[in-house]
Amino acid sequence: MPTLYEQYKAQMSKLADLSAVMATLHWDQEVNMPKNGAASRGRQLATLSAMAHEHFTDDKIGNLLSRMERMTSLDEVQRKNIAITREQYDKATLFDEAFVIRRSQAISHAFAKWIEARQADDYGIYVDALQQIIDIKKEEAKIIGYKDHPYDALLHEYEPGLTTKRISEIFDHVKAELKPLLKKIKKSKSINTKMLQGHFDKDTQWQYGIEILKQIGYDFDSGRQDISEHPFSTSFGPGDTRVTTRIDESDFCNMLFSTIHEGGHALYEQGLPAEEYGLATGSYISLSIHESQSRLWENHVGRSKAFWTYNYPSLQQQFPRIFKKQNLKKFYKAINAISPGYIRTEADELHYHYHVIIRFEIEQMIMNGEVSAKNLKELWNEKYIEYLGIKVKSDILGVLQDVHWAHGGIGYFPTYSLGSFYAAQFYQQALNDRPKIEKKIAKGDPSSLLNWLRKNIHQHGRRYEAEELCQRITGEPLNVEHFLRYARNKFGEIYGF
Amino acid sequence: MPTLYEQYKAQMSKLADLSAVMATLHWDQEVNMPKNGAASRGRQLATLSAMAHEHFTDDKIGNLLSRMERMTSLDEVQRKNIAITREQYDKATLFDEAFVIRRSQAISHAFAKWIEARQADDYGIYVDALQQIIDIKKEEAKIIGYKDHPYDALLHEYEPGLTTKRISEIFDHVKAELKPLLKKIKKSKSINTKMLQGHFDKDTQWQYGIEILKQIGYDFDSGRQDISEHPFSTSFGPGDTRVTTRIDESDFCNMLFSTIHEGGHALYEQGLPAEEYGLATGSYISLSIHESQSRLWENHVGRSKAFWTYNYPSLQQQFPRIFKKQNLKKFYKAINAISPGYIRTEADELHYHYHVIIRFEIEQMIMNGEVSAKNLKELWNEKYIEYLGIKVKSDILGVLQDVHWAHGGIGYFPTYSLGSFYAAQFYQQALNDRPKIEKKIAKGDPSSLLNWLRKNIHQHGRRYEAEELCQRITGEPLNVEHFLRYARNKFGEIYGF
Repeated sequence: MPTLYEQYKAQMSKLADLSAVMATLHWDQEVNMPKNGAASRGRQLATLSAMAHEHFTDDKIGNLLSRMERMTSLDEVQRKNIAITREQYDKATLFDEAFVIRRSQAISHAFAKWIEARQADDYGIYVDALQQIIDIKKEEAKIIGYKDHPYDALLHEYEPGLTTKRISEIFDHVKAELKPLLKKIKKSKSINTKMLQGHFDKDTQWQYGIEILKQIGYDFDSGRQDISEHPFSTSFGPGDTRVTTRIDESDFCNMLFSTIHEGGHALYEQGLPAEEYGLATGSYISLSIHESQSRLWENHVGRSKAFWTYNYPSLQQQFPRIFKKQNLKKFYKAINAISPGYIRTEADELHYHYHVIIRFEIEQMIMNGEVSAKNLKELWNEKYIEYLGIKVKSDILGVLQDVHWAHGGIGYFPTYSLGSFYAAQFYQQALNDRPKIEKKIAKGDPSSLLNWLRKNIHQHGRRYEAEELCQRITGEPLNVEHFLRYARNKFGEIYGF
Repeated sequence: MPTLYEQYKAQMSKLADLSAVMATLHWDQEVNMPKNGAASRGRQLATLSAMAHEHFTDDKIGNLLSRMERMTSLDEVQRKNIAITREQYDKATLFDEAFVIRRSQAISHAFAKWIEARQADDYGIYVDALQQIIDIKKEEAKIIGYKDHPYDALLHEYEPGLTTKRISEIFDHVKAELKPLLKKIKKSKSINTKMLQGHFDKDTQWQYGIEILKQIGYDFDSGRQDISEHPFSTSFGPGDTRVTTRIDESDFCNMLFSTIHEGGHALYEQGLPAEEYGLATGSYISLSIHESQSRLWENHVGRSKAFWTYNYPSLQQQFPRIFKKQNLKKFYKAINAISPGYIRTEADELHYHYHVIIRFEIEQMIMNGEVSAKNLKELWNEKYIEYLGIKVKSDILGVLQDVHWAHGGIGYFPTYSLGSFYAAQFYQQALNDRPKIEKKIAKGDPSSLLNWLRKNIHQHGRRYEAEELCQRITGEPLNVEHFLRYARNKFGEIYGF
């Protein structure tokens, strides 16, 4: 007879299986699915969502939890897992099956419309589907409940404990501190990024991306890379964590940094303890911690001098016509040039946060009812003039650029900036703990860094919450000063002030 | 309030969703999945199988069926659907969840071992996993029950109503009739197939296969082609029916005929009525009828003079070094040459049936307990000497060649030959009904044939059973004389007797 905890673990494993299956279907939808498969896929995902919801909210689970909560023999980790399941259970039981099916269908529909709208570069095609998402997310926030702001209800899904107020404080501080830095940069001699332009053969890019993934430690026996409209990483359980990228033959950096970014996410998933599958301790902590891993690899490694000291010669070999005559220093500066742009995922390390702040502000207004899908594009374009000083010329370069809303992911964006801030704090600590990390990266071996991340972050799953983990590793909770100092040092040196 | 029939249809649609999801996972497993994903995938498929089984065997379905069975207002089609569900329901309720999970896990394990064994060309790696499959299929037959032979219990799964006795009669007749035909061919001047040898570039083959699929009417907006170890076709519901192929750069025919074959299967699925999704009337009739579609396209179209009258010039263009100096007549003879070989899927139209008969005889012995996995390879190799006069030199060319047993598909093989026999009977009828079919194929337009198949077969789903449909279309049940006459005429002409 299995113990209660074993029964619980078996039930959680089944639910994790359903999530993994849905992730597989989503992956296939974005990587492989033929056009006419959308309706069937949407219905199948809705059926699975409903089934997962039904199984999770079954009284069996509730009873198991109640009985385990009265036990005294469980250890701290077991109690932590149970407490998280309890919270998720109580939340899930707020929704009935009909709502879950409706939400899943709205998402499938919106995703298909988003793809269609992007192909036509016409936001109008997507408006109604997006409004359905907005309506259903408002309904969701109402069902979940909130104290201060309906947006809080959604934030919690991605970043437990995070509030609109706390993000606003952080973002206000970052805005205030980035302003003078950006002013200084603007006054400095601008960096010539022309050397990054040219024709970059698709297959060569593809192969280069694969090699970079291998170098940072991504295990291709436990994953694969494919092409999709919007790069992403996803996990189907232990042994199968996949990444996607996109290739623009006129823009090598697009593939390069998205590959390292998604690779960073995937390294986290590949480092989670397989034996804790289905439990909080076998899962990532929060989206900001997930993002800290991708941003750490993308920016602190992928845009570093050390990394390119090793990799630039091979890059020159792969694209000799473009890089042969340019030296490493110029290349390093070019990939770190600060300049406002349209696309979040291609933004430099400073303007990136304005992209996120714009979405954060719009999402609050969405949830407040201050803006609807119909006039969202206008608002978007106004904010890009206000914050980045650029006029958005097309919907693909504007409001259609991110998939998140089509996926129902309102409340997701702020975790991107928080992730960057965590990344800076973690990376500094890694360097303090292992001073040879950058020397090794400069020799093509980032394994010392990966091992530090495995030991300090990955292996714990969600044993600790985000700020708790941060405190354990760095001795303090999230502190954006680490990011700001890193930014001032790095760009001060690059721009010579 | 939805009617009982609407409720039933909704339930069936959900179950069809689960089947479609499992098909997607299987497809991914054979096309994309990284090595280390096998264990997770196996567990996920087991979880889904158990869930599908639990939902199907729920009393809700039983009650719905009982209530509908007492209704007098349903039409003939509705009653047919209900009767088929009833049969499946009564059968499914014989199995408990533990059995369903065990079977699913055994299949995932066996599939992984089969792949591993093929890579090492070592049947030994696969023996234990195959024995597990055999044991579980015996258990399955016992649970289902049977009158004459345990094998009957499994046959019914793939071909409702089919018995070991009926197949034996048909196969004995075919063996008796093919023997003198093969003797005549052996005495005739042999056909030189050297012209089919050479190096066939992978990408050119791939593109050629795509063009052929388009020509026969496969809709790429509702499907896609990929590469897998063993070619197959699969459907994930309306709008998403996929095919796979394999490419051997030294053997163009391998890709070519498997592509047309799987394309034929896919055309059937793409022609099923989408509005009947989940019901028998939205599904294929049986595996032999499915196979009749693939074999009809593969042999009666793909190996016909008419087809190559149109396509040979483009083939010469694609592979000029190999075909430029050879004429159509020689090519036609070469692709129809009769010669015993090791691999079923590459066999000529006559020896093909000996491959099937060998598996049929082995499967009977498996179910009788006369042979176990351990000594199955020996038996296999003996039978290849007896029936085809060839000594099997490696496991990949022998007992490891087919995936079916690894998938738990014991009882599946006989439907391949029956499918060929149905194909001959249907194709003859199509020519009787539409005498211009071959003229149109010779002009690159097989749509008249496809429309005939759509009208007479595809659109009905499983409204009729196999022999019933055959009777409706051709005026008689399955009659192998059509196949035998076709074979005598075609090969008599080719071999000049």
